[in-house]
Amino acid sequence: MRDRVYIDEIGQHEGKEVTLEGWLAGRRSSGKILFLQFRDGTGFIQCVGSRADIGDEPFEAADTLPLESSLRVTGTVRADARAPGGYELSLTGFEIVHGAEEYPISRKEHGTAFLMDHRHLWIRSPRQFATLRIRATVIAAARNYFDSRGYTLVDTPILTPNSVEGTTTLFETSYFNESAYLSQSGQLYNEATAMALGKVYCFGPAFRAEKSKTRRHLIEFWQIEPEIAYADLDDIMDIQEELVCEMVERVLETRATELGILERDADALKRVVAPFQRITYTEAVDKLNEAGHAFEWGGDLGAEDETVLANMFDRPFLVHRYPRSVKPFYMEDDPHDARVTLSVDMLAPEGYGEIVGGGQRAMDLDTLEQRMRDENLPIEDYQWYLDLRRYGSVPHGGFGLGIERFVTWVCGLPHIRETTAFPRMLSRLRP
Amino acid sequence: MRDRVYIDEIGQHEGKEVTLEGWLAGRRSSGKILFLQFRDGTGFIQCVGSRADIGDEPFEAADTLPLESSLRVTGTVRADARAPGGYELSLTGFEIVHGAEEYPISRKEHGTAFLMDHRHLWIRSPRQFATLRIRATVIAAARNYFDSRGYTLVDTPILTPNSVEGTTTLFETSYFNESAYLSQSGQLYNEATAMALGKVYCFGPAFRAEKSKTRRHLIEFWQIEPEIAYADLDDIMDIQEELVCEMVERVLETRATELGILERDADALKRVVAPFQRITYTEAVDKLNEAGHAFEWGGDLGAEDETVLANMFDRPFLVHRYPRSVKPFYMEDDPHDARVTLSVDMLAPEGYGEIVGGGQRAMDLDTLEQRMRDENLPIEDYQWYLDLRRYGSVPHGGFGLGIERFVTWVCGLPHIRETTAFPRMLSRLRP
Repeated sequence: MRDRVYIDEIGQHEGKEVTLEGWLAGRRSSGKILFLQFRDGTGFIQCVGSRADIGDEPFEAADTLPLESSLRVTGTVRADARAPGGYELSLTGFEIVHGAEEYPISRKEHGTAFLMDHRHLWIRSPRQFATLRIRATVIAAARNYFDSRGYTLVDTPILTPNSVEGTTTLFETSYFNESAYLSQSGQLYNEATAMALGKVYCFGPAFRAEKSKTRRHLIEFWQIEPEIAYADLDDIMDIQEELVCEMVERVLETRATELGILERDADALKRVVAPFQRITYTEAVDKLNEAGHAFEWGGDLGAEDETVLANMFDRPFLVHRYPRSVKPFYMEDDPHDARVTLSVDMLAPEGYGEIVGGGQRAMDLDTLEQRMRDENLPIEDYQWYLDLRRYGSVPHGGFGLGIERFVTWVCGLPHIRETTAFPRMLSRLRP
Repeated sequence: MRDRVYIDEIGQHEGKEVTLEGWLAGRRSSGKILFLQFRDGTGFIQCVGSRADIGDEPFEAADTLPLESSLRVTGTVRADARAPGGYELSLTGFEIVHGAEEYPISRKEHGTAFLMDHRHLWIRSPRQFATLRIRATVIAAARNYFDSRGYTLVDTPILTPNSVEGTTTLFETSYFNESAYLSQSGQLYNEATAMALGKVYCFGPAFRAEKSKTRRHLIEFWQIEPEIAYADLDDIMDIQEELVCEMVERVLETRATELGILERDADALKRVVAPFQRITYTEAVDKLNEAGHAFEWGGDLGAEDETVLANMFDRPFLVHRYPRSVKPFYMEDDPHDARVTLSVDMLAPEGYGEIVGGGQRAMDLDTLEQRMRDENLPIEDYQWYLDLRRYGSVPHGGFGLGIERFVTWVCGLPHIRETTAFPRMLSRLRP
């Protein structure tokens, strides 16, 4: 593969003449000097050239070239402290690869619907570029966390024969002669693979056919879900904390330019260091009521409750031991308090709310069977899952971290929709 | 998180007493000495204890404990050259965490249907353990290849509004008030993200509702698909070659134990070094006919043809420039021969066949539109895709590598079904 020079490593070529391949992202000219904003997908750089440097005809051509035309620019790399990336290019020439039609996205304000309809082009804009690069870093950091600690990635199936949480929010499809549903979580399968491979994680898309339009929900989203054999609730909390610290640290280390483009307050992220506060659900309820936000013990924390709570903390925090009534059948009971479970969610500060949910799983076969009967769950369909309690049951637990919610918080975005290239929402299946 | 000792790093504890947490994988006893095969999800180790060492009662208990019971074993780590992992444990005691029911999978031969019905338990067996660990290594190696070379991971949508390749092999679902289909490839979306981010890849599940039962097909499979702006067919071939070499190298480096469990011929993998032979489709057809395997120029290479061809090579090889008739509309024409396209597949040796498919994409708007009209494709639905040729079109290309096919070959398996934890096949949606 031939060597190419990219903007995100342009510093290595200071003082040298290079050729960059990319697109025209912006332009201004004084009639004598041309300033081209140039992007190559790894960053943005300003190219400066005088009429004398590049010649009259090319100068005029560049001065009228539509935005997003593709071109190769050649010039000398100069350090410039005022430039966003620290460098600019003294232009000596360029080659037009393809002259674009008039580009539909301009500097003027466009409505969200217009931008979403042009999402395939909108992602070329600096803020979208920055968000998607941070998303990739977040995912790589999470994977590296698990890979470097002996976890085995085991992909769990997307097409599943049934769901323990009811079918109302499931997408259904015809699987030859039967019905299949798109997975909302790999967790039950993870429990099987954790008994085979000790420490596992899955990472894939999940689907919720929810008719809700909120700034926190996507129909299609990505989750990373570890599951650990021989682990208890405290282990699960430790892992959540360590993982989230490492993910944020990686973003701070490698994505300063992108955080700058987003004007994200990096100090808020620098506060994300262990230990995180760990409060019980009961303590969380007390905090809400003390703050004048009426909340009755036993209910689930809704988006508004989480926002109030999440505004009280300067870094992520853990809420553990939720009531039995608001958690699924597979959560282990707290042996010291039968009303609550060994569950734990992590909430992001600055009002963002839940980014992680998990806990310790019920270990005993009879308890689990009884609970499934109490909740009228299709016990016959879950014999394979119950087998995990028949053949070498062990204390175990895990959690799920929603990538898009995490990125929304890390990037400081008002809405989740920009955290993925082609979001799927209630009225949005295109492009 | 508390420090734990795992079998795959047991060598660090030679001579020390450790406690391992796991399951009973096998057992034999002389009445005086007990040999426990113990597994913890990261490996297998033999634990040896005499009646004197561990006491009469525990000895008897261990001697009758059902397989796959969960237990903690304590003992001293001893190097033993005859042991599969190089170490064994001199048992000083153990604690039964959960006594299993009689385990359904025994050493006797079980039929595939029985094992697949018990897939949630079967994955605990050494060969399945080894295959899934190698799969995880293969995936990590591919991701690291791209992450370390400046590619941005951009997840493409699974729920899509339509397909250019017809809907006969698509899973359909109701997306609120319209139809959606499960993606078979992220490629078209990748082309959009490559224009925004330069070098990208997606990695996710793909779905083919094919009524074929072959040893090479799964209904649900995972694909890694890079796409590169400003790249031509030669670049694409170079990247495929370098990627596959690195993936195989990583397996050889870190999964020797697992290859040993599978009795995979490591020499066959050690031959996987660049350069790979690059032959045209036309040369491939000649080779087939010379070998007495009649094949007419213009047809697609089927599984049988690939097998014949793939038995002629001792390492992966590239077949490029397939006829226009057997490749999709978005493949670029060869400027030197209008009958063929700038496409390239990689075939694995030892009879395995196609593991990678890709090529250079058509760059010109008019050509692409004409071709869509010729093939009666729903041109209106693909205006967003055609926009990529209206606004800064560039030479670009990419490919898809099927993870399960790759793992089948690397592990030397006769059938693709064991390369994923819970395979989805024509008559298999469970567990």
